[in-house]
Amino acid sequence: MKKLKLALLGMGRMGKTHYRNIQQSSAGASIVVVADPLYQPAAGEFGPEVSFVRDPEEAIAHPDVDAVIVATPTDTHAGMVEKAIAHGKPVFCEKPLDLSLRKTAAIEALARSRGVKLMLGFNRRFDPDFIQARRAVQEGRIGKVHIVKITNRDPDLPPIPFLKTSGGLFMDFSIHDFDMARYITGRNVIEVFARGAALIDPAVATGANDIDTALITLTLDDGSWALIDNSRKAVFGYDQRLEIFGEAGMIQVDNNTYHRNVRADAAGIHHALPLHAFPERYARSYVNEIEAFVQTILRGEEPPATAADSLQATLAAVAANRSMQENRPVKLSEIGLD
Amino acid sequence: MKKLKLALLGMGRMGKTHYRNIQQSSAGASIVVVADPLYQPAAGEFGPEVSFVRDPEEAIAHPDVDAVIVATPTDTHAGMVEKAIAHGKPVFCEKPLDLSLRKTAAIEALARSRGVKLMLGFNRRFDPDFIQARRAVQEGRIGKVHIVKITNRDPDLPPIPFLKTSGGLFMDFSIHDFDMARYITGRNVIEVFARGAALIDPAVATGANDIDTALITLTLDDGSWALIDNSRKAVFGYDQRLEIFGEAGMIQVDNNTYHRNVRADAAGIHHALPLHAFPERYARSYVNEIEAFVQTILRGEEPPATAADSLQATLAAVAANRSMQENRPVKLSEIGLD
Amino acid sequence: MKKLKLALLGMGRMGKTHYRNIQQSSAGASIVVVADPLYQPAAGEFGPEVSFVRDPEEAIAHPDVDAVIVATPTDTHAGMVEKAIAHGKPVFCEKPLDLSLRKTAAIEALARSRGVKLMLGFNRRFDPDFIQARRAVQEGRIGKVHIVKITNRDPDLPPIPFLKTSGGLFMDFSIHDFDMARYITGRNVIEVFARGAALIDPAVATGANDIDTALITLTLDDGSWALIDNSRKAVFGYDQRLEIFGEAGMIQVDNNTYHRNVRADAAGIHHALPLHAFPERYARSYVNEIEAFVQTILRGEEPPATAADSLQATLAAVAANRSMQENRPVKLSEIGLD
Amino acid sequence: MKKLKLALLGMGRMGKTHYRNIQQSSAGASIVVVADPLYQPAAGEFGPEVSFVRDPEEAIAHPDVDAVIVATPTDTHAGMVEKAIAHGKPVFCEKPLDLSLRKTAAIEALARSRGVKLMLGFNRRFDPDFIQARRAVQEGRIGKVHIVKITNRDPDLPPIPFLKTSGGLFMDFSIHDFDMARYITGRNVIEVFARGAALIDPAVATGANDIDTALITLTLDDGSWALIDNSRKAVFGYDQRLEIFGEAGMIQVDNNTYHRNVRADAAGIHHALPLHAFPERYARSYVNEIEAFVQTILRGEEPPATAADSLQATLAAVAANRSMQENRPVKLSEIGLD
Repeated sequence: MKKLKLALLGMGRMGKTHYRNIQQSSAGASIVVVADPLYQPAAGEFGPEVSFVRDPEEAIAHPDVDAVIVATPTDTHAGMVEKAIAHGKPVFCEKPLDLSLRKTAAIEALARSRGVKLMLGFNRRFDPDFIQARRAVQEGRIGKVHIVKITNRDPDLPPIPFLKTSGGLFMDFSIHDFDMARYITGRNVIEVFARGAALIDPAVATGANDIDTALITLTLDDGSWALIDNSRKAVFGYDQRLEIFGEAGMIQVDNNTYHRNVRADAAGIHHALPLHAFPERYARSYVNEIEAFVQTILRGEEPPATAADSLQATLAAVAANRSMQENRPVKLSEIGLD
Repeated sequence: MKKLKLALLGMGRMGKTHYRNIQQSSAGASIVVVADPLYQPAAGEFGPEVSFVRDPEEAIAHPDVDAVIVATPTDTHAGMVEKAIAHGKPVFCEKPLDLSLRKTAAIEALARSRGVKLMLGFNRRFDPDFIQARRAVQEGRIGKVHIVKITNRDPDLPPIPFLKTSGGLFMDFSIHDFDMARYITGRNVIEVFARGAALIDPAVATGANDIDTALITLTLDDGSWALIDNSRKAVFGYDQRLEIFGEAGMIQVDNNTYHRNVRADAAGIHHALPLHAFPERYARSYVNEIEAFVQTILRGEEPPATAADSLQATLAAVAANRSMQENRPVKLSEIGLD
Repeated sequence: MKKLKLALLGMGRMGKTHYRNIQQSSAGASIVVVADPLYQPAAGEFGPEVSFVRDPEEAIAHPDVDAVIVATPTDTHAGMVEKAIAHGKPVFCEKPLDLSLRKTAAIEALARSRGVKLMLGFNRRFDPDFIQARRAVQEGRIGKVHIVKITNRDPDLPPIPFLKTSGGLFMDFSIHDFDMARYITGRNVIEVFARGAALIDPAVATGANDIDTALITLTLDDGSWALIDNSRKAVFGYDQRLEIFGEAGMIQVDNNTYHRNVRADAAGIHHALPLHAFPERYARSYVNEIEAFVQTILRGEEPPATAADSLQATLAAVAANRSMQENRPVKLSEIGLD
Repeated sequence: MKKLKLALLGMGRMGKTHYRNIQQSSAGASIVVVADPLYQPAAGEFGPEVSFVRDPEEAIAHPDVDAVIVATPTDTHAGMVEKAIAHGKPVFCEKPLDLSLRKTAAIEALARSRGVKLMLGFNRRFDPDFIQARRAVQEGRIGKVHIVKITNRDPDLPPIPFLKTSGGLFMDFSIHDFDMARYITGRNVIEVFARGAALIDPAVATGANDIDTALITLTLDDGSWALIDNSRKAVFGYDQRLEIFGEAGMIQVDNNTYHRNVRADAAGIHHALPLHAFPERYARSYVNEIEAFVQTILRGEEPPATAADSLQATLAAVAANRSMQENRPVKLSEIGLD
């Protein structure tokens, strides 16, 4: 079987994760070039079959490279993707494509017009529990869906400097949930009502002009609803749950925890905490995600998380921001590209 | 110890429940008069110490009667309570006091000005699990509360004729949840955003001008939020859950189920269904509620669910209706009495 | 409907429990005489329709009395039951009938020969969760049963003086489990292998010549097995669980707990403790048990927990004692009546 | 850091598992020679740095090889281990070392006298949940241990021909549980009482002279007990649970399941099945196990599962067989080497 030869751009946290996952687990691909302007590889860190270069464009253009993985800093995503498209090479890009809606839309249109496959890193779509939940919905196990409730809470407030450049809670964090609502239901969001506040730390507002807690309701295009609640700090760990309620039943996705042991003592019955952060909780989803990219490219299919999906999630984030500022429900159709 | 002598008005479902609970379980009260214009008692149904009369006013006025329990049809509540107040007798009234906000406010004011104790039947305040949750909040176990999520779903859609006279989902059903948000947090609601639709059966809209499914967000007066999701039909049973998320942790109240048995077979691991309806689920709360009325009256204290609480919940219901109709968040301060 | 008129002998803890349950909840019976040589009733404690006497025999013989409830101290059970049999009156007796196997057998034979109904207080047979488990077995939900595992642990070690007169762990405590194995499977025990020790407190051995911890395996007459583990002290509460494993699945009965709330904090996910002691855990079973006695007597049926059941459980307890002393499996057929 | 160079003997199911785990995950080792007399490698299946040979002895003797992994058929284990010892190379061997107690003891003594490290494949010692349980015991979280209950049930009855050569249930299957009792408590087994039968399929007895269901009690050298229940067929999946009860609490290890989703419908609340078989359930333990071997060899330490452990588990299996045959408890001290 032909193996897809990949260029990996960026050796930050996600770049390293993709490197390890592809080299260890991918049945259909291997990395042939790694590019990072700053990274200092350890001796022997990359196998003899992997070139390391400084210039990402060199990696994209490399004649052996069939497809590109973009794991560079967010503000360079758009440029990297544009270059890959220019070379006609399929590209996987970490989310978000861009913090600007206009740019996101432009790249989505570009990839479409050029017929270049572009996949976005909505990794939660590849988590086994969420896959299982979506399949049950699609199989009609709970009939028509009425309400999806998505809980997404981080274990720790990120540093204020990070928040300043993150694009804000809705764009940086809730965007996964906007996508999840669409992924689970197969419906588009048409209206958003969002409340947000800095309940955890006032410095989030004063220092980063951001919020740390949010409650968002979405109206979907079949008249059903989704509810998202977000917090930047759940002291008990990374709180990643889902509840899908329909006419014939309910599906709940509970947290994944450190172990299955239960301890009983005079004070209570104690269960394990949820996995504390995303690299643990979504370890499997990152493996599956890259393999899904590789397999769909090899088969010439549309990737399972596209720039169009990214655009829809970004639209919802923009609408959420406007809803919060104006304290009113905002339709996605109101959102223009400037 | 002196026993409180009670008149019980109404021998419908709730009247019978109160009769049984008081006669069997109350440590501080006994019923001396039962009044119902239509009820046909069985021979020996009431003990020799209980008089049965047709006219509720006769029961209220009876010289042996210290306090009154109103369990008559909703549209007679206000009149019964006014009569009890006129006789200066403490009164327990099933919710709602009245479907009209104006009337509710008027009676609340009347009871207050006359110094007559008036308790409303917000029975869920007396459920052991919710009591336990509230106590944990008050003890600071989860620190400052950020979000309360209340799930309240009926097992079966009521008949359309019932819905026609019910006052609508927010007034008839969600009102428990408006009260629960206040009970758990100790805060008042200041703003409501509500979405509602007939997702279960279009006849709810066409036949009763009502909704069967709702998603409501509340802003509380300390800047925290509550989220209510309602459905008239959860096929798996009466879905009564609570999740309270705060800066130092989370409390969840899960459904009470028929039994604790788990069955494993080749198809899965099967747990028991939730108790199917309110008489089972809240059996204990009805016992506790009446005893709380009796004990606070005996001690001369304020009852733990007052007409003022009822007024606040009713205001939220009115605001929810307006919010849904006008598709915008509505402040309780906007709501006038007409 | 005719009501069964009962004499209640003994106003200790169980006597009071039966009094309250019958007077408040029984659909088919009422107590007309209470007898206790020592009890000092409070003024008005018994209603006007209840006579209080000192002499149990007077109560048994009372012409209004249809049936007798024996809740006197254990060493008087046999005598009371014999008198009730002599008067031809159906009798309910708290377990054990007698600490002596010979006496137990004699009374069982006497009741049988006289055709007098005799029910024993194996209250766990009337617990809703165990009833549910047994029904599932009978319905074939898990096919043929291979192994029943019974966990029975007390929350606190009883005082040494109590243990001295208790008859020993197997007779006083495990006897419920011997009966449970038979109740769940519908099979008889044919062989017992028991290990026992004073692991909690050596004073149990030195001061009461008893054990506080036991591990017992039973062979049933269809070749299946039961496993019992007992402890006098589970610090987390009254541990009452059951696991039934069969060719087509498994049924587990979990502990009943104080509430359904779950609290998550930085230290873990905390669930409620099991109900701490038998009056709480088996409150419902005591109500059901007495009503089962009343209803079977009214219908002229055999009671659902007979002296023959008591004899079988007592035989298993005797075999367990011998097994532990001789460190070998002991067949019930080895046990003679002296 | 020096890497340990390994010879892998045998490319059956476990050989392949070890190959993949070492090559993909081991931080401290790599395989340099694979030996299997019959295996047909796919083109490129082994990397260029791996030699493939037919003769295991050639692999053991290979000058590059630092240590040996034995994953050949059970009846060749002893011979392979003896050769590795003869070459003075540390060796990891799948359990059992040998079906014969005498041989097991001889090899244990040989490795000891030659000072060659010999690790046995008791993989469950390396499962994260069991590690966590043992750590909690060692930290004193539940005080002194009184009873360990081990449930070990296979999902499907193996074929009768396999059972014929397996050594019997106690030696082939329960041996994991004998080791687990020692692992969790840190105590030795001194006495065994075992019951066994062919409850699932009489052909197990008639065709393989084996049993498919067992109930075993162990007395440990501190007077505490362990209870093992085994079945060859749990229709709901691979049932691997543990309960450790002590003076200050209880630890339970529950099954690992396919997902964390819960589905509620009108028929019940449905949870996921346990992982169906050992390669899934113990995937992580196999990775950890080999890495533990590698790291202890690199550090010159004693491996965490030794031939002495294997000998103790084998002794318990022999005692269990004798106990079942003679229907009496058997002390390990009774077991001689012939």
